[in-house]
Amino acid sequence: MFDCNVYVRRRRELLKRLQGETGIAVFIGNVDAPAQYRDNCYKWRQNSTWLYYFGIDEPRFAAVIDLESGEETVFADDFTIDDIIWMGPMPSVASLAERVGVIRTAPYAKLDWAVSQAIIQGRKVHALPAARYYNTMKQQGLGIDKPSEALIRAVVSMRLVKEDIEIAEIDHACDLGYEMHTRARQGIKPGVIEQEIVGNMESVANCKGWGISFPTILTQHGEIFHCHSHENTVTPGRLMVVDAGVESKTHYASDFTRTYPTGGRFTQQQREIYEIVYRCNELAFSITRPGTAYRDVHLAVARQMLEGLKDLGLVHGDLDAMVTDGIAGLFMPHGLGHNMGLDVHDMEDLGEDYVGYDPDQQRARQLGLGSLRMARRLVPGNVITDEPGIYFIPALIEQWKSERKDGGRVNYDKLRSYYDFGGIRLEDDVLVTETGARRLGGRRLPIAPDEVEEAMAKE
Amino acid sequence: MFDCNVYVRRRRELLKRLQGETGIAVFIGNVDAPAQYRDNCYKWRQNSTWLYYFGIDEPRFAAVIDLESGEETVFADDFTIDDIIWMGPMPSVASLAERVGVIRTAPYAKLDWAVSQAIIQGRKVHALPAARYYNTMKQQGLGIDKPSEALIRAVVSMRLVKEDIEIAEIDHACDLGYEMHTRARQGIKPGVIEQEIVGNMESVANCKGWGISFPTILTQHGEIFHCHSHENTVTPGRLMVVDAGVESKTHYASDFTRTYPTGGRFTQQQREIYEIVYRCNELAFSITRPGTAYRDVHLAVARQMLEGLKDLGLVHGDLDAMVTDGIAGLFMPHGLGHNMGLDVHDMEDLGEDYVGYDPDQQRARQLGLGSLRMARRLVPGNVITDEPGIYFIPALIEQWKSERKDGGRVNYDKLRSYYDFGGIRLEDDVLVTETGARRLGGRRLPIAPDEVEEAMAKE
Repeated sequence: MFDCNVYVRRRRELLKRLQGETGIAVFIGNVDAPAQYRDNCYKWRQNSTWLYYFGIDEPRFAAVIDLESGEETVFADDFTIDDIIWMGPMPSVASLAERVGVIRTAPYAKLDWAVSQAIIQGRKVHALPAARYYNTMKQQGLGIDKPSEALIRAVVSMRLVKEDIEIAEIDHACDLGYEMHTRARQGIKPGVIEQEIVGNMESVANCKGWGISFPTILTQHGEIFHCHSHENTVTPGRLMVVDAGVESKTHYASDFTRTYPTGGRFTQQQREIYEIVYRCNELAFSITRPGTAYRDVHLAVARQMLEGLKDLGLVHGDLDAMVTDGIAGLFMPHGLGHNMGLDVHDMEDLGEDYVGYDPDQQRARQLGLGSLRMARRLVPGNVITDEPGIYFIPALIEQWKSERKDGGRVNYDKLRSYYDFGGIRLEDDVLVTETGARRLGGRRLPIAPDEVEEAMAKE
Repeated sequence: MFDCNVYVRRRRELLKRLQGETGIAVFIGNVDAPAQYRDNCYKWRQNSTWLYYFGIDEPRFAAVIDLESGEETVFADDFTIDDIIWMGPMPSVASLAERVGVIRTAPYAKLDWAVSQAIIQGRKVHALPAARYYNTMKQQGLGIDKPSEALIRAVVSMRLVKEDIEIAEIDHACDLGYEMHTRARQGIKPGVIEQEIVGNMESVANCKGWGISFPTILTQHGEIFHCHSHENTVTPGRLMVVDAGVESKTHYASDFTRTYPTGGRFTQQQREIYEIVYRCNELAFSITRPGTAYRDVHLAVARQMLEGLKDLGLVHGDLDAMVTDGIAGLFMPHGLGHNMGLDVHDMEDLGEDYVGYDPDQQRARQLGLGSLRMARRLVPGNVITDEPGIYFIPALIEQWKSERKDGGRVNYDKLRSYYDFGGIRLEDDVLVTETGARRLGGRRLPIAPDEVEEAMAKE
């Protein structure tokens, strides 16, 4: 938890940004999420927007801010003697609320009363979209039928620009991410089961941070984006994609991806593709600066990627036309990056378009560009990922071929020898500064192909 | 997943046990549980009863069994091309259903239709209690207003008696639990942060099993039962309670507790209490056999415990009267044990009393005995925990003292020197056999006080 003033200042700023709006704003923190039954829950994780404005890292808290009077109330229940026996002594709700600068508190059940009173009085009730099923149910129960666009936009506008204290936390999460990825790289030895590497690397997150910031991707099938199976044995000659991050104890995320040759050395074919992805990663960083739309950075990367693939004879034709027609999407069917902060895809629960698109930007429908989560014109304080990738996805290639989606630009015959290639992704976390950009974390994970081979040779 | 016949046989047996009931039985598997937003979910965990009867370890499956015709239908959606890009190739719903012996499949959305048809036709709809908020919402949406006692009782009667293939899995989970606890014990060194021990020990579960079977308890405040804070530094002279288990890849649990002197050797005071708890654990095991009610084992342990505490001068009076009056509850305010299987508290989502109490048994209201989760007359195939503990909980002692709850049996003056003691719990997992009982897992974790000190001296 940060200093009390941080939360007071943020809520004051929120009120300011909501000037002209009437009614109340309701914030509902998370409750424990049962895995099997109510007494066996998943690891506790507070709602990120709640953490941002109210900081209290305990289940079953809610709050109401009166947008007209500015009055703030925290709703939660004090511990009973039974709670104390089972869960230990606990500060009172009043003292927890005081730590974040809120004076008025009330029992949790009173939230229903506060909201229904507002509804009866015909006042507007502003709430954020609910991501967890409990919160959906709770909002339905409160009679909140839809989220407030004004509140979403105000929250997004604040959380998009990271404060210095937040950047320090993200730097720290990145340092832990560096350590976790190093442990992973050291574990990639032929014959090892992937899951052993995952279990060992995640212990860094569990020993030193809050845990992992998202389910670890560690796979020799990099062409499967959200592959969470770790059953395979490390086999020489493959590429291992490791996409993983740590959540700091204050709940800020890191998110890095590296791709390693399982035997320690790239094949010629692997190195050719790796070099393209590496150049794309470097290019994106070099042109990331205030005023530039990240959508344009994505498109510059697409062009660079097509140029490399063209040199290899995998595509042919005019580069600009290929960019316009979205040919890069066949190889990189995802966006270049996303915002990162208290969530690894920051604020994704509030709506991707609100978070990642300026009001005058329209989301594309093309494969790849259409998945871009961050398109906005960059401003200092934005924290984003730079994560180009090239994948050879047989099902997708076959689809494009049969539906002639490429306008004759793709060399399908040549692509056939890549069907068992897998994929490569290289991801760094980047802060937009006043003058350009800075990679987050004290040290950058080895990324140049020689550097990677060298690191693996020593391990 | 077990062999197809296992699931066919179980469902046939379930139908038999529901003979006389009409209508349909609805089984709703889990969906992914969002941690922060829909694309960042907690680790996938299927519903245990679903696993028991339908085995398919994938999200968003449901099934209906027609209790009259015996017809079975699995409801789920096949992968689209987009799913394949993001999550890889996946067997069809039909082939997954076939693996567990179900021929009829239908899209997930058809479940609503199947249930509403039954309701319109005035047929009974049997469903189980929902533990997760999604399942609660789904059942509400389906118009299922309350769980079916007949279905609960039939399921409980089957899952309470473990099959040989299940016992083998629990033995395996216990072997992994042994390994995880050994890692924990080796990590308990003065100066280490508790969380480092937790992160390291849990990597055993993550490397070799599905993960932990419940949130690890590792604390120098053993008097706090569900203490999940691991912020403290290991301090010589304290007692470290480690209560943790592994879930096997087939989702069977283990659950062991050991209590260690943080400096490697017990103090005199610690050893005296430890000896009592150890004797209680041994006693419980020695009298666990078919035909005995586990409630009586709990009471025998309470008597043994009071005898030990009486020898130390902490209580005085007639032992039998003290047992009847629940004096042991001040020191052990929890039950002796619970069922264990696909859930660490097996079937707790179906209702503790259905699972742990014979129809003719009434749950007590006393502190301690009232929390007993397993009171039933034991039958071969029951898997239960044997986990006596003694705790000194200042808030509880003060409450008893001021409310004179002890009928003059407690020596509060003497208890004062135990206020900073913490607690001790010693837990094994036990199978009820034809003739008695067997501790599960190949090796028993060191438990006798000398044995514990010896193990720690070597590490």
